[in-house]
Amino acid sequence: MRDFYPEDMAIRNHIFQVWHNSARLHGFLNYDSCVVENLSLLKRKAGEEITEQIYSFIDKSNRELALRPEMTPTLARMLIARQNSMQFPAKWYTIAQCFRYERMSKGRKREHFQWNLDIAGEPSTSAEAEIIAAAITAMRALGLTAGDIKVRINSRALMAELLIKHGIQQEHTASVFMAIDKYGKIPEPEIVKMLTAACLSEEGIKAVFEIMKINSIDAAKSAAGDESPAMRAIIEIWGAISTYGLTDFIEFDMSVVRGLGYYTGIVFECYDIKKEHRAIFGGGRYDNLISDLGGNKIPCVGMGFGDVVIAELLAEKGLLPTGSAPALVAVGCMDKPSMSLAIEIAVMFRNNGESVDLALAPEKPKNFFSRCSSAGFDRAVYIGPDDVKSRKIRIKDLKTRQETELSL
Amino acid sequence: MRDFYPEDMAIRNHIFQVWHNSARLHGFLNYDSCVVENLSLLKRKAGEEITEQIYSFIDKSNRELALRPEMTPTLARMLIARQNSMQFPAKWYTIAQCFRYERMSKGRKREHFQWNLDIAGEPSTSAEAEIIAAAITAMRALGLTAGDIKVRINSRALMAELLIKHGIQQEHTASVFMAIDKYGKIPEPEIVKMLTAACLSEEGIKAVFEIMKINSIDAAKSAAGDESPAMRAIIEIWGAISTYGLTDFIEFDMSVVRGLGYYTGIVFECYDIKKEHRAIFGGGRYDNLISDLGGNKIPCVGMGFGDVVIAELLAEKGLLPTGSAPALVAVGCMDKPSMSLAIEIAVMFRNNGESVDLALAPEKPKNFFSRCSSAGFDRAVYIGPDDVKSRKIRIKDLKTRQETELSL
Repeated sequence: MRDFYPEDMAIRNHIFQVWHNSARLHGFLNYDSCVVENLSLLKRKAGEEITEQIYSFIDKSNRELALRPEMTPTLARMLIARQNSMQFPAKWYTIAQCFRYERMSKGRKREHFQWNLDIAGEPSTSAEAEIIAAAITAMRALGLTAGDIKVRINSRALMAELLIKHGIQQEHTASVFMAIDKYGKIPEPEIVKMLTAACLSEEGIKAVFEIMKINSIDAAKSAAGDESPAMRAIIEIWGAISTYGLTDFIEFDMSVVRGLGYYTGIVFECYDIKKEHRAIFGGGRYDNLISDLGGNKIPCVGMGFGDVVIAELLAEKGLLPTGSAPALVAVGCMDKPSMSLAIEIAVMFRNNGESVDLALAPEKPKNFFSRCSSAGFDRAVYIGPDDVKSRKIRIKDLKTRQETELSL
Repeated sequence: MRDFYPEDMAIRNHIFQVWHNSARLHGFLNYDSCVVENLSLLKRKAGEEITEQIYSFIDKSNRELALRPEMTPTLARMLIARQNSMQFPAKWYTIAQCFRYERMSKGRKREHFQWNLDIAGEPSTSAEAEIIAAAITAMRALGLTAGDIKVRINSRALMAELLIKHGIQQEHTASVFMAIDKYGKIPEPEIVKMLTAACLSEEGIKAVFEIMKINSIDAAKSAAGDESPAMRAIIEIWGAISTYGLTDFIEFDMSVVRGLGYYTGIVFECYDIKKEHRAIFGGGRYDNLISDLGGNKIPCVGMGFGDVVIAELLAEKGLLPTGSAPALVAVGCMDKPSMSLAIEIAVMFRNNGESVDLALAPEKPKNFFSRCSSAGFDRAVYIGPDDVKSRKIRIKDLKTRQETELSL
């Protein structure tokens, strides 16, 4: 698990700031919950892989708890508790620390922070479009372009339609999705094994690989038919994203199904263009989760965007902020009696909204100014006994080296 | 543990914003660490009470871990890891979620968020003064005055001096501090019991109560002598706080010793003026913790400021922010074909940095505008088929009811 030293925190704060701002621009309300959640809630609707990796523990009163692996079950719990009093559709966001119990690897740590956007109560694809647009807005604010990343979009509903067309029954779709989720990540024979384990016949397996070859919306249209409801939803989203001016950022990709069990319709994942990293963000529609957990029928769309992969990508592209100074203005002093005036000046700047690094002990002018230039302050004020007498100070601009005199 | 619905989150964000800003004004660098910490680190230097209440658990690999009860041991661990490469004095801050395993009561929950300010590497009282000034700055930014709250300041070093003067040996001071910490919180006979258990004689106990009667700096001076090092430190802090212009906010209080074991010098606690609530913030000097944990000798001062008591006090005084609208501008539309233009307009406002609540489905004008006035948006744009044709929109100011026409 990570420690965040000030230089790490500057990066994290930069990413969080972009997330908060994009959520704000798109009218999402901020919510949060505790990192500790009931294990039973988390286990009920997560995918197999996530359940195995849950960071669970028993508390002092023998409760089965966990450090949450994801925020969606908690969001569902919170929505259900207020489903009869709150207004829908609701647009909510959070930046939540999430945990998994597994060996660490590149882009995958024991914990990470995840920006979650969710829209609850909207059955139309305008919800998917708005969430994808908000996530891309964040990507652009971080400095990434359509040449750097792509959002790959698919539909589980479309997959299900095609599987049924090929005679694969609905009871097998969940296991087929789990296998397809590994497409491109593990060797094909392994996927064949998974599909065989899912009780698919040889023809069934062949059909799955046939479906996976669909690589454009047009090919999908010919396979599913123009009038298929799933196809219509995809076409609607493409239209909306084009109106948002973001067509360059999206791509149709049949291999995207997502690892979580609860998705029902559109699913999407964002990758760097060369797919050298893990997914940057991902999400989709989950229309049944709330009712499966005992709530009303509330159709939802959600997205999770972690802080680890994006930071790796930004570092690679030289888009991370460089270390910032602790404050704008440095105030130092020569001796103990000068310290009162130094405090006075610090208070003056701070009352003006400017951050001040006030020296806590006297320093020689040489030491003070050499510290100032390496720390990256904007301006510096150094107080000596003469300044205390005259109550005149000099504010030095550390870039231009010019001094401005100020009479107190 | 708490869920934060959007209206709760608005309050939390308000308090966090003030904390971040005061830390920034005072030149503190932001750091953070994971909520999970090694139990052994947490147990080594915490007070008795905290050790009992640690939210500990065993992980899947039989590690003894805990959800941290406080941030100071973690900070010490992080400083020790870089003690030979980083610059001192270091001014660091964090807003950390902390946990305790105990029954909940007013102002005390299983978890809370704590703003921590620490200065590491500065032996002089300028560190205490700067931290107290930063905390009071936050209090004022929250709307509180010297008529609402007081920072009660004492010195463990002074207490120790006085105890030794009365023949109470240093080995007993830790237990005596624990008893004094309960002064005013539990009945006096209970305190007598605690002092007896700490091996104090009847005279010793009498001396402790005598010391507790000291209620001013002048009385402390007569008891300890002007030249006592502890007394000099107190006088220095009073001088500095006066230069900060904050004398009205502080008070000398012999009963303040803090519950944590690691404090060595100045200690302080901030209360509402009537002491109806628990402490709002508290802290002090801990010069030995870093070396006790195996690090260099690095003198430190720190402060913790929780989010629960302050929110109670702000609510009582009517100083909490009232629920905010999800966005500045609401954009709605009459029918599906108008939605494209609605998206275009939302993108226009968002590109201009303004937050937009974009309707996800068509609404009747009556429903749209009635929703707008109750949600508290600033402006509203409603798109119908005529607007799509003319590409002219009307932006309605929801306060003045005036409309501005805009040609796209």
